[in-house]
Amino acid sequence: MSGNTFGRLFKLTTFGESHGPSLGGIIDGCPAGIALSEDIIQQELDKRKPGQSPAGTTRQEPDTIKLCSGVFEGCTTGTPIGFQIANKAHRSQDYESLREVFRPGHADYTYQFKYGTRDHRGGGRASARETVSRVAGGAVAEQFLRTHNIHVLAYTLELGGIEAERIAPEKACENPYFTPDVSVVELWNQRIQDVKEKGDSIGGIVEIQACNVPVGLGEPVFDKLDARLAYALMGVGAVKAVEIGAGMDTADLCGSQNNDPLSKDGFRQNKAGGILGGISSGQTITARATIKPIPSIFLPQKTLNAKGQEVSLQIKGRHDVSAIPRIVPVLKSMVRLTLADMLLLNLGSKCPSVQNP
Amino acid sequence: MSGNTFGRLFKLTTFGESHGPSLGGIIDGCPAGIALSEDIIQQELDKRKPGQSPAGTTRQEPDTIKLCSGVFEGCTTGTPIGFQIANKAHRSQDYESLREVFRPGHADYTYQFKYGTRDHRGGGRASARETVSRVAGGAVAEQFLRTHNIHVLAYTLELGGIEAERIAPEKACENPYFTPDVSVVELWNQRIQDVKEKGDSIGGIVEIQACNVPVGLGEPVFDKLDARLAYALMGVGAVKAVEIGAGMDTADLCGSQNNDPLSKDGFRQNKAGGILGGISSGQTITARATIKPIPSIFLPQKTLNAKGQEVSLQIKGRHDVSAIPRIVPVLKSMVRLTLADMLLLNLGSKCPSVQNP
Amino acid sequence: MSGNTFGRLFKLTTFGESHGPSLGGIIDGCPAGIALSEDIIQQELDKRKPGQSPAGTTRQEPDTIKLCSGVFEGCTTGTPIGFQIANKAHRSQDYESLREVFRPGHADYTYQFKYGTRDHRGGGRASARETVSRVAGGAVAEQFLRTHNIHVLAYTLELGGIEAERIAPEKACENPYFTPDVSVVELWNQRIQDVKEKGDSIGGIVEIQACNVPVGLGEPVFDKLDARLAYALMGVGAVKAVEIGAGMDTADLCGSQNNDPLSKDGFRQNKAGGILGGISSGQTITARATIKPIPSIFLPQKTLNAKGQEVSLQIKGRHDVSAIPRIVPVLKSMVRLTLADMLLLNLGSKCPSVQNP
Amino acid sequence: MSGNTFGRLFKLTTFGESHGPSLGGIIDGCPAGIALSEDIIQQELDKRKPGQSPAGTTRQEPDTIKLCSGVFEGCTTGTPIGFQIANKAHRSQDYESLREVFRPGHADYTYQFKYGTRDHRGGGRASARETVSRVAGGAVAEQFLRTHNIHVLAYTLELGGIEAERIAPEKACENPYFTPDVSVVELWNQRIQDVKEKGDSIGGIVEIQACNVPVGLGEPVFDKLDARLAYALMGVGAVKAVEIGAGMDTADLCGSQNNDPLSKDGFRQNKAGGILGGISSGQTITARATIKPIPSIFLPQKTLNAKGQEVSLQIKGRHDVSAIPRIVPVLKSMVRLTLADMLLLNLGSKCPSVQNP
Repeated sequence: MSGNTFGRLFKLTTFGESHGPSLGGIIDGCPAGIALSEDIIQQELDKRKPGQSPAGTTRQEPDTIKLCSGVFEGCTTGTPIGFQIANKAHRSQDYESLREVFRPGHADYTYQFKYGTRDHRGGGRASARETVSRVAGGAVAEQFLRTHNIHVLAYTLELGGIEAERIAPEKACENPYFTPDVSVVELWNQRIQDVKEKGDSIGGIVEIQACNVPVGLGEPVFDKLDARLAYALMGVGAVKAVEIGAGMDTADLCGSQNNDPLSKDGFRQNKAGGILGGISSGQTITARATIKPIPSIFLPQKTLNAKGQEVSLQIKGRHDVSAIPRIVPVLKSMVRLTLADMLLLNLGSKCPSVQNP
Repeated sequence: MSGNTFGRLFKLTTFGESHGPSLGGIIDGCPAGIALSEDIIQQELDKRKPGQSPAGTTRQEPDTIKLCSGVFEGCTTGTPIGFQIANKAHRSQDYESLREVFRPGHADYTYQFKYGTRDHRGGGRASARETVSRVAGGAVAEQFLRTHNIHVLAYTLELGGIEAERIAPEKACENPYFTPDVSVVELWNQRIQDVKEKGDSIGGIVEIQACNVPVGLGEPVFDKLDARLAYALMGVGAVKAVEIGAGMDTADLCGSQNNDPLSKDGFRQNKAGGILGGISSGQTITARATIKPIPSIFLPQKTLNAKGQEVSLQIKGRHDVSAIPRIVPVLKSMVRLTLADMLLLNLGSKCPSVQNP
Repeated sequence: MSGNTFGRLFKLTTFGESHGPSLGGIIDGCPAGIALSEDIIQQELDKRKPGQSPAGTTRQEPDTIKLCSGVFEGCTTGTPIGFQIANKAHRSQDYESLREVFRPGHADYTYQFKYGTRDHRGGGRASARETVSRVAGGAVAEQFLRTHNIHVLAYTLELGGIEAERIAPEKACENPYFTPDVSVVELWNQRIQDVKEKGDSIGGIVEIQACNVPVGLGEPVFDKLDARLAYALMGVGAVKAVEIGAGMDTADLCGSQNNDPLSKDGFRQNKAGGILGGISSGQTITARATIKPIPSIFLPQKTLNAKGQEVSLQIKGRHDVSAIPRIVPVLKSMVRLTLADMLLLNLGSKCPSVQNP
Repeated sequence: MSGNTFGRLFKLTTFGESHGPSLGGIIDGCPAGIALSEDIIQQELDKRKPGQSPAGTTRQEPDTIKLCSGVFEGCTTGTPIGFQIANKAHRSQDYESLREVFRPGHADYTYQFKYGTRDHRGGGRASARETVSRVAGGAVAEQFLRTHNIHVLAYTLELGGIEAERIAPEKACENPYFTPDVSVVELWNQRIQDVKEKGDSIGGIVEIQACNVPVGLGEPVFDKLDARLAYALMGVGAVKAVEIGAGMDTADLCGSQNNDPLSKDGFRQNKAGGILGGISSGQTITARATIKPIPSIFLPQKTLNAKGQEVSLQIKGRHDVSAIPRIVPVLKSMVRLTLADMLLLNLGSKCPSVQNP
C-alpha cells in the first residue's frame, strides 16, 4: 500500500486505522511563515465529528488534534508538520464477529486478497475514520490558500433523492446538513428517520466551489486541474462520480450552448466550472461528487465467510445512516489540498521576465 | 508545465504540439520480454485516425509510429521505449488569424496567462492531437496486460443526446462510432449531419470496461483504483464527468440496493463497477466518461482579443463535429495505462510467504 | 521543505525537530505479512542512543518508539506504519542565546534565509536528532530484507585520523565504536579525550556492506543502485564524501586492474563494490562515507548575528565530540531503506515468462 | 527499468541505445519564456563529441540535435521539450561476437540477469552514448540558470594519476582535456599514448563548480542539495566516488579547522563546498567525481559466456582510452540539471510576506 501520499509539492501523507492507537499524518511542503495552531485545525475537525446531525453515528470521538512539529511561535517553519489524533472511543469487541466474514459493499474482501491479511476491527484502514487526517491536512492547506485570498465552500445538493437549491452556499456551514437551502432540512430529517428505522442507508450529492482562484492553476496534459480534482474527490471512500462545471449535462448540449463567451466583464456563463484546457480560468471552480449509500446496513445480507461458505450477515455496532453530511468537510479538504498543491506547482510556470498580456 | 508524465511505475511521458515537427513520448517501466513492434502500435493509432466517421475532421494525418528504442528482436528489453509521430498535414496558415484572439471554450486564454506565451497554431499542446501519444502508450500497456489476460473495451453509449444500448460491447470496434448497438448508427449519422449543417458541435457518453482484472489492484488511500481511473479519464480534454459502476445513480439508491452480495458463484450484481475500497474485486471494472461538445464551432462567437477588446469570432479550418468517436480509443488507452501501472504497483503488496484465504 | 520522503515504493516520510513535542514518521509501501513490533525497532534505536561511547553527548534521551498503525497481531498489514518518538530531555534554555546568531558549520544561516524563520532550539529540524526516525525506518526495512536473506553491516574505519583494519566487520556491533578492529579502541579513546579537552571535534570514515543482495537491483539510467546509495548516504548530515567499491582509488588504476574478472566460482575480486552498470551483481555491496567533524565545538568562533554584526561565539550545552559512532547505525539504516526500495522496484523488471540464462 | 527520469520539477526523461535508431529525451517543467534553439544545444553536444582529444574513440558521430516541440519563435513555451539525436555511425557487426559473453567491468552480466534479455550491440542502454541526452538536457537547464546569473564550470583535476592545479578553471573549456592547468597537457598526452599502446585504460578526477548560486537551494532532510548532487553525479557511468567541498579531507580535520567562519565580507573559507545543512549558502558550490578507468580494454580478459563457461575475451572495436575528457561536459550537465530543479523546488519555500533578515 503505497498510495498514502497526496500531492506533489504540498504533500499530505497519512496513517492510521479505525481501531489502532492513533491516526495522523505529515504535511510536507507547506511554505514557511503561515499562521497555524492546534485550534485552527481543531475547528475544522469539529465539523466532521459525529453526533452533529441525525445522520451520524453515536460513536463519540473527541478527535483532538496534537501538533508534533513544524510550527514555531505560531507560524509554520517550512519543516514537515506532523500531527496525531488518538483513537479513544473504539469498541473492538463489536467487530470480533466480522473477523471471518466479508461485509458486502465493504473493502473486507479486497483487502484480504490484496494483502493476505487485514485488521478487521472497524474496517481498519478502509474505515471512513481515515478521513480525519484529510480534514487536518485540508485545514493547513486552507491557511495557505487564505494568503492568496482563495476560499473553498462545500454543501449538500441532494440527500436520499431529495434535492436542495443553491440558495445560500456560503451559509451552508451553519446547519448540520451543510445544505445551502434550509427549506429541505425537515424533509431530510424525515428521510433519515425513515431509513434508520428500516436499518438501511442512503447517499446523495455534494458540490464544492473554490472562489478567487487565480488564472493559471493546473498542469496540462495529465495533471489538468480537473483531473487532479477528480482524483482527489474520487479517492474519498463512497464517492462514485465526479463532475466538473456542467458535468454530465454537457453530453446533451451543443457547443454553442456549452462554450462560455468572454466579455470585458469576464466570462458570461460558467459551464466549464472555471477550468479551460485543464487550467483555472479565474472563474469559480465548481465540482460535484456523487455519494453512494454507506454499505453498513442493519438488514440481513447474503455474503461469504473466509472459508468460502455462504452466510447471512447482520451487522451490529454504531454506523452513520449516510456519509452525508460528515463527508462534506472531507471533500472540501481534498479540494483545498489540491489547490494548495497546484498553487505551488504553478510558481515556476514562466520566467519572471515574461509578461502577461 | 510539469504534468506530462502519467503513471508511477508504468510511466508514459509525452511531448508535442499540433503544428510542431512531431509528437511522441517515452514509456519507462515496461517489463522486459513483451512482444512489441511498430505494427502492433500502428493498429491502435489507426483507430483514432480522422476520416473514419462522419463526425471527424478532413485533416488527413497518416499518424505513422516510429519506434526509437527499447525494443530488440521483437521484444521489449526493459529500457525506455521512445516513439515519435511526425506532423504531416498541418496548415498553420489557417490559424494565423487566431494568434491574437481567445477562442471560447478553448485553452487559449488560460495558456496565455499561465505561460505568458503560447503556440497558437492549432491549439498547440492543448490540441486533441496530443492524444495520439496516449494511444501509442496504451497500445504498449495492452501488450503487457495481455500477458495477464486482461482485456479492455470502450464504446459509445450516447451521442448528441441519443442513447445506445449495451447490446454487443465486444463488437463496438467494428463500426465507425464504436457503438455497441448498431441500431443507432443511422440516427447518429442524421444527428451529425444536422449539427454539421448548423456549424455547431455535440458531445456524448463513452463507457469503458476492463475484463479479467485480478483482485487486488489499487492502492488505498489516495491512489484507489477508482481515483486513478477518474484522474486518467478526466485528464483527457473534453471529459467533464467520470462515473464508476452505478455512478450517479447511487445517489438515489439505498444501501440494500447498492451493496453487491457475495455468493459462491461470485458477486450477484456489480453496482460497484468492480472496485471495493479502491481495490479491484475481480468483477468487470466499469467506468463512464461524459464528453462535452467540442468548442470549435463555425457559428459566430463573442470573445476577447489579446488587447482586451470584445470581438466577434468565426472559426475556420477543419474540425470534428464531435470528439466522439475519435476519443473512444483514447479513453480506452488511459484505462490500459492505469491498469498496467496498478499491476506493477501491486507486485509488492505482500510477502511471498503470505497466503490468500 | 518538501524533501522529507525517502524512497519510491518503500517510502519513509519523517517529521520532527530537536526541541519539538516529538519526532516520527510514516513508512508507506512495506509489504504485508512481515513480523514487526516495537521491541524490534527499539533494539535498533538503542544502538544510536547517546551515552554509549566516550564520543557521545550526555543528553539522556530514552528514544522510546511508539507504533501508531500498520501492525496487527505482530505482522505488518500493508497499510502505512506510523511511529513516534517523544522528545524528553531537551533543555531549550541552553539555546536561547543562539536565537540571533549563526553558528559556523551549522544550518542556522541557510535555514534563516531559505525559510525567513527557524526554530533555533537545538538546531530544530537540522539537528542530528532527526536521524532517530531514519533508524526506525531502517529497522522496518531490515525486517523486509531478512525475508530475502539480505544482511547489512556498518563499521567505523577511521576516527580522527586513526585507521582501523577490516578484521571482523560482523563483530563491529559488539563494541561502542562499531570498529571491526578492537586494537584501535584504546587509541580512539585517547584521541577523543584529547579533542574533548581542547573543546574541539573530529570526524572519520564509515563503511557499509550489504551481503546476499541478489543480482538485478538498481534502475538505470539515473536511478542506478550506486546513485541511490550516494543520495541516501550524502543526505545524512556530516557526510561529505561517498565512495562505492574501490572508490577514489580507481582514479589511479588501469582498466586491467580495476575490471573484476568473472569465473565459474564468481567474480575474482570486487573493485566494483558489487554494482555493475548501476545494477547489483550478486557480490557484496560496499560503500564508504566520510564524516566531517561536527560543527558544535566549545572553542570561540567568529561569526555573524542576525543583524549582520560580527561577533565571537562560544557554544555551550551538551554535544558529541564526533558524529561517530552514533552515525554508524544511521548510515546502515539508509542502506537498508535503499535496498528495500530497490527490491520492490525490481519486481516488475521482466515478464514472468522471461527466463534467466 | 523505471529510472530514466531525472528531477522533480525540472525533469529530464531519456531514451535510447547505442545502436538503436536514435537517442533523445523530453524536458518537462522548463519555465516558459527562455531563449532556446537547436544551435544553443548543439554547441554543448559538440563539446562531448568524440575525436577531439587523444583519449577519445574514432567513432565519428555528428550528434545532431533535432528539437521536436516546446519551442516557439525562439523561446520555450512551458510545454515539454522533445528532442532527438539519430545514431549514424554504429557498426553493429563489431559486437556480434559479444552477444553471448559478459565483458568484465561492463553491465552485460547484470542487464542479462535483471531483464532476462539485452541489446548487446555497443552496450545498448548501458553505453556511455546515453549521456548525449544528458548534455542536451543540461544545455536547456543552463539557459534557465542564466536567467538567474548562475554559472557552472567543470574541469579535469587528475588523469591517469597525474594531477593538475586549479590555475584557470574558467579557461578549462579551451583545451581538449578541459584542464585548468595547461602545463599538464603534454604529460597527459604521453600518459594516454602509453596506455593506448598497452591496450589498457585509465581514469581520473573531475571537479565541478557552480558560481552565483543564491542562498536557499536544497530541500532537507533527504533532498539536501549535496545529496541530490551526489545522486546526479554517481548516476553517471564510471563515477565511483563523489565529494562535496573538502570531501574526504574532512575525515582528518578538527571542527575548528573545518568550520567556515562568517564575516561581514562573507565566509572566510569554503570547506563546506557552498552547502550548509543541505542548503546552498551563497558560496561557490564545489563537487568532485572520481572516474574509474573504462572497462573496454584490448588486453585479453578472463570471463564467462552465457552458457556459464569460462572464456578468454579480447575486445575489438573503437573505444576511448579514458572517460575523461568526454565525461566532463556530462558531469557539468548533471549539476546544471540539479540546480535548475532545486531552483524551482525552492520557489515555494516561504510565504511572499515573510522577510529575510
